[in-house]
Amino acid sequence: MAKYVFGVDVGGTTVKLGLFDINGVVVEKWEIPTRTANGGEKILPDIADSIKAKMADREIPKEEVAGVGVGVPGPVDGRGIVHKAVNLGWGEVDLKKELEALLDGMKVEGGNDANVAALGEMWKGGGQGHQSLVAVTLGTGVGGGIIINGRIMTGATGAGGEIGHIHLEDNETEACGCGNFGCLEEYASATGITRLANRALQACDKDSVLRTGEVSAKTVFDAVKAGDELAIEVAKKFGDYLGKGLGIIAGVINPEIFVIGGGVSKAGEVLFEYIRPSYEETAFHACKDTPFALATLGNDAGIYGAAKMVLD
Amino acid sequence: MAKYVFGVDVGGTTVKLGLFDINGVVVEKWEIPTRTANGGEKILPDIADSIKAKMADREIPKEEVAGVGVGVPGPVDGRGIVHKAVNLGWGEVDLKKELEALLDGMKVEGGNDANVAALGEMWKGGGQGHQSLVAVTLGTGVGGGIIINGRIMTGATGAGGEIGHIHLEDNETEACGCGNFGCLEEYASATGITRLANRALQACDKDSVLRTGEVSAKTVFDAVKAGDELAIEVAKKFGDYLGKGLGIIAGVINPEIFVIGGGVSKAGEVLFEYIRPSYEETAFHACKDTPFALATLGNDAGIYGAAKMVLD
Repeated sequence: MAKYVFGVDVGGTTVKLGLFDINGVVVEKWEIPTRTANGGEKILPDIADSIKAKMADREIPKEEVAGVGVGVPGPVDGRGIVHKAVNLGWGEVDLKKELEALLDGMKVEGGNDANVAALGEMWKGGGQGHQSLVAVTLGTGVGGGIIINGRIMTGATGAGGEIGHIHLEDNETEACGCGNFGCLEEYASATGITRLANRALQACDKDSVLRTGEVSAKTVFDAVKAGDELAIEVAKKFGDYLGKGLGIIAGVINPEIFVIGGGVSKAGEVLFEYIRPSYEETAFHACKDTPFALATLGNDAGIYGAAKMVLD
Repeated sequence: MAKYVFGVDVGGTTVKLGLFDINGVVVEKWEIPTRTANGGEKILPDIADSIKAKMADREIPKEEVAGVGVGVPGPVDGRGIVHKAVNLGWGEVDLKKELEALLDGMKVEGGNDANVAALGEMWKGGGQGHQSLVAVTLGTGVGGGIIINGRIMTGATGAGGEIGHIHLEDNETEACGCGNFGCLEEYASATGITRLANRALQACDKDSVLRTGEVSAKTVFDAVKAGDELAIEVAKKFGDYLGKGLGIIAGVINPEIFVIGGGVSKAGEVLFEYIRPSYEETAFHACKDTPFALATLGNDAGIYGAAKMVLD
C-alpha cells in the first residue's frame, strides 16, 4: 500500500524535491543543484540518485511509494515527453520513460512547471476544494496553468494555458518577448507594470513618489496603498488589461475559480480591486461571479502539484 | 453486447432523433415536434415514447442499446441536470434521471447542444481523427464547443466554450445580445457581418453590389467572391476580429484543430483567407500552425455528438 509520493520541480539552477504522505502533508523538502552541462544529461540521474538516497535513509521500501511527479520548464506532452526545455539544455527528452528506468520501474509522471504549480494550488493552495481553475502567475512574465476536472489541460502542443500571450492590444508598438505585439504579459507582468509606470511618468508631470525612487511592480503597489494618484492610474491600467484578459479566459474555460500568484501577487488582495471592475464589465454573465483567490503555496506549488500528478 | 446508440438533438420547434450503430453509421433519422407548453413537460416523455416505438418497430432489445444521448439548448452540468432552457420552457430539469426513468433504466447522457455538436464534428465531421478541438458556429450568433481529450469541456456553470461573448473591442457603442459591449459575436455572426457591411456602406460612397440588393452574410461573401472592394473590406474586418478571437482561444486551449460551422461557413474556405492573417499575427508561436477545417455534418452534428456522448 502506497504511503508516500515524491514531487520534483526542476528549475534552471535548482531542483526542488519534496517527500509527501499521500494526503499531501510534507514529510521533508530539500534541493539539489541543476547540472545543465552536456545537454542536461545529469539532471535525471541526479534526481533518481537523490530520491533513492532519501528512500534508503528513511528506510522506505519501493512498495510504499506511489511514484514520482516532475515539473519542468518546457512543454510536456500527454505521454510525459519533454519537447525542448532551453533552461535545462534539453531537446526532446522522454522524461517518463528515462526516469522510470533510472528508478527501477517506479511510476513517473511529468508536466510543464506552470501547469503543475496550478495543480498544486488546487490540491493544497488557493484553489483547494475546486475541480477546475485557472492559475495566473504574475512574475517576470505572465504564466498560466489550467485545471479541468482535476486534471492539467496540456494542450495539443503543450501550450495550453499560455495565457501570458493572449492578444489584448492592437496599438502596441513594443514587441513582447514572444515576438508578437500587445500580449497580456506586456501589461500584467512585473516587467509590464514597470513599463506602464515609466510610460505614465513620461506622459505627464504629475507628482508621484515613483519619480524619486526605484520603479517596480512592488514600488507601484506600495505607492497605490499610500494613495499615490499616478500609481493608482498605473494600477487601473494593469487591472483593465488583466481583468479583460481573465474575462475572456472565463468565457472560454468557465473555471470555478481564478488563483493569482507570482511575485506581483505579494501586493495582496488590493490587486483584485483593480482587476474586478473590467473583469465584471467584460465577462459573460454566467462567469461574472467567478471568485478570485491568491495563491498560497509560493515556490512550493511545483512540488505539491508534481506529487499530485502521480496520485490521479 | 451493445450494437446501437440513440442521439437526440432537442430544438425549440423540432426534436431530431438518430439511431446509429456503435461505429457511428446512421441507421435511421427522424423528427418529432417539440411540445413546449406547460413548461415543456411533454418533451422528455415524447422522446422516450419515440425511442421505445422505434425499438419495438425494429425489434431491438434493450440489451443491444448502449444508451441515449441528448443535446439541449441550455447549460447542462456534469451530472446531466439542465439549468434553464428558455426555448424549451424548462427551468431546472434533471434530464438524465428523468429520461432514464422513462426509458426503464437505459443509460442517458445530456449535454449543451453547441458542445454536443462539437463532439459530433470530432467523431464524424470536420474534426475527425482529433482528440481536442474548438468548434465555432457562425450563425445568427456565435456559438462554440470545446473538446479536450475526447470529452466536452462543460465549464463550472455550463458556460465553457461560450466564445461568442469574449470581449474584443473596447470602442463598441452597440450592446451585444448578452448585454456587454464588443463581444466577438457582434462582428463574426451573420448578424454581425450584416452590421459591419451596413456600417461600411454608410461610412463611404464606394461603389458596391451591396448598395442595390439585400445585405446579409451570404450576399457579402458572394460579393467578396465577385471581387467587390467594399465587401472585401467587410470580410477583412470580420476576419480580423475572428482571427484575433481564435488566436486568443488558441493561447488558452491550444486545440489540435478549429472546426468552423454554421450558416456563415457555407461561404466555404474563402473564410479562412480572411481569418488566418490576423490569427497568425496574434496567436502564440506554438499555435500559429493550428489547422482550420469546415464543419461537415451541418444540422446532424447534434445527433452524432449526442450518440457519441453515450459511448465514452
